[in-house]
Amino acid sequence: MPKHIILDSDPGIDDSLAILLALASPEIVLDGISTIHGNASTEQVTKNALSILELAKASHVPVFKGCDVPLVKDSLLGPETHGDTGLGYAKLPDPQTQPKIQHGSDYLIEQIMSRPGEVTLVALGPLTNVAIAIRKEPRIVQNVKEVFIMGGAIQHPGNTTALAEFNTYVDPHAAHVVFHSGMPMILTPLDVTYQCIFTKDDLNRLEKIDSPITKFISDSTRFYMEFHDEYQKIDGCVINDPMTLALTFMPEICDYQDLVVDVDISTGVGLGNTFADFYNYEKKPKNMKVAMGVRPRMFMELFLERMEGLCSKIR
Amino acid sequence: MPKHIILDSDPGIDDSLAILLALASPEIVLDGISTIHGNASTEQVTKNALSILELAKASHVPVFKGCDVPLVKDSLLGPETHGDTGLGYAKLPDPQTQPKIQHGSDYLIEQIMSRPGEVTLVALGPLTNVAIAIRKEPRIVQNVKEVFIMGGAIQHPGNTTALAEFNTYVDPHAAHVVFHSGMPMILTPLDVTYQCIFTKDDLNRLEKIDSPITKFISDSTRFYMEFHDEYQKIDGCVINDPMTLALTFMPEICDYQDLVVDVDISTGVGLGNTFADFYNYEKKPKNMKVAMGVRPRMFMELFLERMEGLCSKIR
Amino acid sequence: MPKHIILDSDPGIDDSLAILLALASPEIVLDGISTIHGNASTEQVTKNALSILELAKASHVPVFKGCDVPLVKDSLLGPETHGDTGLGYAKLPDPQTQPKIQHGSDYLIEQIMSRPGEVTLVALGPLTNVAIAIRKEPRIVQNVKEVFIMGGAIQHPGNTTALAEFNTYVDPHAAHVVFHSGMPMILTPLDVTYQCIFTKDDLNRLEKIDSPITKFISDSTRFYMEFHDEYQKIDGCVINDPMTLALTFMPEICDYQDLVVDVDISTGVGLGNTFADFYNYEKKPKNMKVAMGVRPRMFMELFLERMEGLCSKIR
Amino acid sequence: MPKHIILDSDPGIDDSLAILLALASPEIVLDGISTIHGNASTEQVTKNALSILELAKASHVPVFKGCDVPLVKDSLLGPETHGDTGLGYAKLPDPQTQPKIQHGSDYLIEQIMSRPGEVTLVALGPLTNVAIAIRKEPRIVQNVKEVFIMGGAIQHPGNTTALAEFNTYVDPHAAHVVFHSGMPMILTPLDVTYQCIFTKDDLNRLEKIDSPITKFISDSTRFYMEFHDEYQKIDGCVINDPMTLALTFMPEICDYQDLVVDVDISTGVGLGNTFADFYNYEKKPKNMKVAMGVRPRMFMELFLERMEGLCSKIR
Repeated sequence: MPKHIILDSDPGIDDSLAILLALASPEIVLDGISTIHGNASTEQVTKNALSILELAKASHVPVFKGCDVPLVKDSLLGPETHGDTGLGYAKLPDPQTQPKIQHGSDYLIEQIMSRPGEVTLVALGPLTNVAIAIRKEPRIVQNVKEVFIMGGAIQHPGNTTALAEFNTYVDPHAAHVVFHSGMPMILTPLDVTYQCIFTKDDLNRLEKIDSPITKFISDSTRFYMEFHDEYQKIDGCVINDPMTLALTFMPEICDYQDLVVDVDISTGVGLGNTFADFYNYEKKPKNMKVAMGVRPRMFMELFLERMEGLCSKIR
Repeated sequence: MPKHIILDSDPGIDDSLAILLALASPEIVLDGISTIHGNASTEQVTKNALSILELAKASHVPVFKGCDVPLVKDSLLGPETHGDTGLGYAKLPDPQTQPKIQHGSDYLIEQIMSRPGEVTLVALGPLTNVAIAIRKEPRIVQNVKEVFIMGGAIQHPGNTTALAEFNTYVDPHAAHVVFHSGMPMILTPLDVTYQCIFTKDDLNRLEKIDSPITKFISDSTRFYMEFHDEYQKIDGCVINDPMTLALTFMPEICDYQDLVVDVDISTGVGLGNTFADFYNYEKKPKNMKVAMGVRPRMFMELFLERMEGLCSKIR
Repeated sequence: MPKHIILDSDPGIDDSLAILLALASPEIVLDGISTIHGNASTEQVTKNALSILELAKASHVPVFKGCDVPLVKDSLLGPETHGDTGLGYAKLPDPQTQPKIQHGSDYLIEQIMSRPGEVTLVALGPLTNVAIAIRKEPRIVQNVKEVFIMGGAIQHPGNTTALAEFNTYVDPHAAHVVFHSGMPMILTPLDVTYQCIFTKDDLNRLEKIDSPITKFISDSTRFYMEFHDEYQKIDGCVINDPMTLALTFMPEICDYQDLVVDVDISTGVGLGNTFADFYNYEKKPKNMKVAMGVRPRMFMELFLERMEGLCSKIR
Repeated sequence: MPKHIILDSDPGIDDSLAILLALASPEIVLDGISTIHGNASTEQVTKNALSILELAKASHVPVFKGCDVPLVKDSLLGPETHGDTGLGYAKLPDPQTQPKIQHGSDYLIEQIMSRPGEVTLVALGPLTNVAIAIRKEPRIVQNVKEVFIMGGAIQHPGNTTALAEFNTYVDPHAAHVVFHSGMPMILTPLDVTYQCIFTKDDLNRLEKIDSPITKFISDSTRFYMEFHDEYQKIDGCVINDPMTLALTFMPEICDYQDLVVDVDISTGVGLGNTFADFYNYEKKPKNMKVAMGVRPRMFMELFLERMEGLCSKIR
């Protein structure tokens, strides 16, 4: 029985790769996508989601537009990382399909409440939609099967400020709501994603197959690699989101710790810092599983194989 | 042409008086009520709203249940001020009617978007519903006619912390969202409401009419007066909410200043402080009208007359 | 028996007027001056203090250079208010005398500890020196007679940010140390000083006497008046510091409240906000007397008379 | 030519071991000790410093009492870690000698200014004395040879809160002043000290020599080991301070990175968090060398040998 997955996402280069990995993996069914501001505007990432689905001949997957701005803070988008369209140098045709009329956060509520214990939510962007859904319908906390979250940096430096990872920095208040909600959560922080580098060799391997998918991966990641080289001296690019997605059906890629994790919403230098109380000074119950160790090539082999499969099918 | 009013409210003693004043005033039509945590739990205040409407023979007014907890902070309710049921010593029978199924914040969105420029929103509690509505449908900002807000303390001391008024202290983050939304706002802070004291003499005047409404006002305000006496050495009680409601059709009760108003969402002693940048050091555009002067007896006479009218009708 | 006064000050236009008022008032003896960054650099205000004393033929009063920068924050000086030299358009000759070698904060400690119960400290600038003295020798708290502080804005808007007065904004951490020290304090906030306007008529009255003192007052306050006109639409200038000094021997100029006063040292919009917990929600002991009412002309008459006396003596 | 060392310290179990290591090491001369609140009150740690010196027959080393409380925060002492006297189960006779009359912070200023470029300061406790010295005499920044600081936790969890190490948590504002002062600093954070565990085997090796020093080490570290076992599941004890001292003459124990390090002084959960901006998002100049790698046994062998030498001499 495949797992039913809903993606809450802001594609975005690595978000797009997560969508492709979801479509290429028989262990899961991608039920739908709710979109969220982040790597680009909600307007843009919604178009991107539709275009990616069309590219992969998966227009049957419904897309729901979500929030435009963070829960409390002003908007902050990520054009240096993902380019103006959010997809680097990739140029996809305008989508033929439209997003559904329902709001992304209402889609989450409806799906989770109508199938108690069956929906796996994979949140790959700022957590605004999820936080709004929790505040509107607190019972989703008990009814969602599990929530995989790409975000945070526990002991790893931030990728946006010294202390904060992009998704939590963009909407720390939403992360605060979600982290303290009581949902069953599995966090994939930079501590593990920054160990999984998609290299030029990996790209070359995919480029052997001639497919519009290959071309998309190539054009989008080239931009991303330039960013990583310039800002962080990393050779290749970090593909946070497909790794998070992969954990839904191949958990053994990572090792996990049950931890007490919080996010700083003060107005100082720590804004958006996600941290674990390892010694549990505050005597609080553990609120999530955190991936703290990773087998990078196990993930990368999975990713490459699945992409090869998809590229072979879609020419 | 009467004004169409939607109340977002947490009844609450003075909220109930605002509902009664709305029903007793021909200048306005009360289209509906969305409820919000605050003076008591959302569960409780929703029951209270229904019961008050039944008491006033106005069960045709629909009630929509809103958020249970603040946007970001933990819940904080006000039992010392309003009693365990939120209505002081008043005991109303359980309501025969039910709230509608739609969420309070969605009711706000639907009403405002379906009648552009026609809906006057009167927000008498923490602003969680309004903030969620703005985040889900930002276009309500341009489509609402005007928003009257009871909340804040500009130069007046707070009534919950040294610096913060109850509604903004309970959900400062929601207030931050609303204050910075660009909606046309009229704020009624403690600076004016604390000058409008409903005294025992005022109560005696109403008690001359034998009516279940009189009994309700008497039982609820007696509790409220005890609170004001104990905590703030005020003889009588401050009825913030009916005054805010009255401004929708009798603006001349107050004098207004156009101001740059913000709310502190830092984690320190100033949390929930609403303040005006009077000299505009930050060079920001003015974001609301603030009632800073008041003619207390003009309001109180209006209130007493309208209550006398209602009490005479409902025996 | 005249009171023995030590000024901790950053002259500064109105600080200079306070020095002159101290020298012109037989009720007090000015024992010495410790200088502090604020209206201008410590280097500059120390020169100014010496020059003012020479102008008033009072070079016997020793001057001690204090701290250059705030306790924790970065330096912030006030050139728009007081001009580059701190004295507006006034040009005084370079002083012939030198500051003493002892540090300003050590001078405070030595004086207070050597004459228990006899020293009245009048602090007219940021409180860095006083805070350092308290931390080095906590027993000055019990041994100082009283401390008059010009600073803060309780219900009045700030004069530097929406919420903060200049002295407390420049060094909120030092103010926090002093406010919580347990010293017997009398605070003169903007709530009273902004009611005492030194007008052009007042200046004209002084200008009838031909004296270098008159010329100094005229040249320095002209600049200050321009600032008040441009930034705050005040016709005349607010002379905070001489009013504070005057209270040491003519307390009846003001009415006082015993209050619980704190200063916000969080990193948000409230930084430097001084506020009173009027209803004492926190149940803390009152920590200072605050001048909350004032008889402006009583002060201004005193000031003008004393200046006339001084100008007549020094030609 | 031995290095001239001044210790600013709060003995404290591991501080005492640092004093003993300093006395036992011919590469350095211990010129004096300024004391500081922290592991116990300043009163107590001053007595402890004198007693340790007497125990090691080194009463010629002068001791100067420093600050009693942090720069801004309220006092916080560490009795669970170091016991009521600050020395665990060790009982030393009351000292026969007295601290000098000069304040600890003034001793630092005087020594550094009188011997430009010659004084190595080793700060093992909260940085209050050092911060006060910088504020009183900013030129010590250019005149101190170097400052070794035990404090902070860069990527390691805190030992007092989830994010903060004890010394920086006790006085984050002082750490902020020192970190931003421009002094040449070498930081020894928990990242390296928590890798250096003094085990029971190590203790047994020392106990082979019968000496009052051995007895002191045994009695004090036994308490410390119990603390580490209970709170942090560490078998043995972390001796932060002697390791920091050792780096003054044997720098090869650690590997260093030049980093931009800051400390969070906001009022939220991050208070006292020391962190590095590894990717230098803020484009600030590097402000210290940080020991980020360590050869634990190299240090421990040095420590044991030197203690054996001292124990053999003092019977």
